[in-house]
Amino acid sequence: MALPKGLAAFPITPCDRHGRVDAVALRRLVARLRSAGVDAVGLLGSTGTFMYLTREQRRTALEVAVDEIAGAAPLMVGVGALRTDDAVELARDATSIGASCGLLAPVSYTPLTEDEAFEHYSTVAREGGLPLCIYDNPGTTHFRFSPELIARLSQVPGIVGVKSPSGLSGETVAHLGDLRARVPAGFSLGYSGDWNVLAPMIAGADVWHSVLGGLLPGICLRIVRAAQNHDEAEARRLDTALGPVWELFRTYSSLRVVYAMAEILGIARAAPPRPILPLSDTARSHVADVIGRLPSELVV
Amino acid sequence: MALPKGLAAFPITPCDRHGRVDAVALRRLVARLRSAGVDAVGLLGSTGTFMYLTREQRRTALEVAVDEIAGAAPLMVGVGALRTDDAVELARDATSIGASCGLLAPVSYTPLTEDEAFEHYSTVAREGGLPLCIYDNPGTTHFRFSPELIARLSQVPGIVGVKSPSGLSGETVAHLGDLRARVPAGFSLGYSGDWNVLAPMIAGADVWHSVLGGLLPGICLRIVRAAQNHDEAEARRLDTALGPVWELFRTYSSLRVVYAMAEILGIARAAPPRPILPLSDTARSHVADVIGRLPSELVV
Repeated sequence: MALPKGLAAFPITPCDRHGRVDAVALRRLVARLRSAGVDAVGLLGSTGTFMYLTREQRRTALEVAVDEIAGAAPLMVGVGALRTDDAVELARDATSIGASCGLLAPVSYTPLTEDEAFEHYSTVAREGGLPLCIYDNPGTTHFRFSPELIARLSQVPGIVGVKSPSGLSGETVAHLGDLRARVPAGFSLGYSGDWNVLAPMIAGADVWHSVLGGLLPGICLRIVRAAQNHDEAEARRLDTALGPVWELFRTYSSLRVVYAMAEILGIARAAPPRPILPLSDTARSHVADVIGRLPSELVV
Repeated sequence: MALPKGLAAFPITPCDRHGRVDAVALRRLVARLRSAGVDAVGLLGSTGTFMYLTREQRRTALEVAVDEIAGAAPLMVGVGALRTDDAVELARDATSIGASCGLLAPVSYTPLTEDEAFEHYSTVAREGGLPLCIYDNPGTTHFRFSPELIARLSQVPGIVGVKSPSGLSGETVAHLGDLRARVPAGFSLGYSGDWNVLAPMIAGADVWHSVLGGLLPGICLRIVRAAQNHDEAEARRLDTALGPVWELFRTYSSLRVVYAMAEILGIARAAPPRPILPLSDTARSHVADVIGRLPSELVV
């Protein structure tokens, strides 16, 4: 299975204060993504707080999403866990419930060596029964994937792509070119970090793994389609118009901001799992002010 | 409750490959610590792989240790978890089973703000029923405690000390002096990082939170007693003699080395939880060689 190209939209996972999934709210979020026609739904990513939910609740979230999507888009789901055997079980759950692909972050407490990460990924790929996308997110996992390790993992049967962090545009475009030369044809090279993703998308990256796309899929799809159609001017115009949102993400973190945005826009009312706190009243007002000033074509 | 002064010895938690505690092996390790007369046993620290064990297995380990120590030394136990409510439950388990103190690391996936860490600690201190020692370990948690945050937390009822990382001797001694001026009398200031701990201990730190002490409590106690008795020359002599062990810790990580040492010395035969791998055969031979050359007065 190759990963789809385009927009992978990562919603929050609305839960109560005990970490129980709010199925109604999650279904509403996923329905928005289906209706918008996203290229993939990214359930239980970092924005979906996968590491804060039990296996049981992760199953519940997946069942709700699979049911709501009903085959209209591929579903990628976070299967990361601290223990290798737990990640295998999560991948098996995802396989049996009907996910298309697992997103595996090298979550660690004890910092991992490259060989340990390689064994971890190989084991989950071999035993989980699910195509895997490597989740390279040093901001949360503090693990650094070398291009050599990505290349080595891209040879493992069942590992089909990587979601890399984006940064300065020149560096990210160079990173994309470097990886492209090292991995097999069809291996998906995608990027996260919404405010820096335009450059690699214009340069031909396969997927934008998007936090904003989980809440506002319409505008993110327009940017992706413009990039895919080589309409760089339109893609830049829309991305620039979203600048105030990217500034909020940089200031308060995308996770905390999308929780506030979901509530401000009346899409979902939920708090992130403690110890993560909702934004302060001041920050929330700032978010509301920015959202209120956005042209309406962007808030879709 | 004030924390005891001296050596807090942190054993590994021997488990099978499914993460089930080997009660016989753990009992043997704890018995060594009790017999040696350590000042505290530090169960389920980073060396005790607390983040890789279920709540049930953490309960089992604690029950075994409490039973074996039988009140001969205070028992400090890791209660860290990604979710605040889970950390509260772990602290309550520890209270009911009979631990003396909880060791709370700000484990995170999403990077935490200082206010989030403060709320996390305050909640566990208030609801867990157990005195808490702050576990400052940026090498695993990637959270940085400012001296201001430690000072703020030291005012919270039930937070009784901090286990800080040690580094360059001058900086660590300055850190100790800085914290001492900010926290109430009796607030425990201890250090981890075996190979750098001598300087703060000589400078009057309260506790050496020790990885090697969990396996070789005798020699570590001699160092601590020499430091406590202001016999700096003897403390330095013994610490210097352990230099080859510290070099192994720096090279391969203390966690992986103590697993190999435990097996080489016939004390416990266990592998760390996957994805953490045992040392390679080459590295293991290196460890065996170093241990074999140590003077026998050190291997106790």
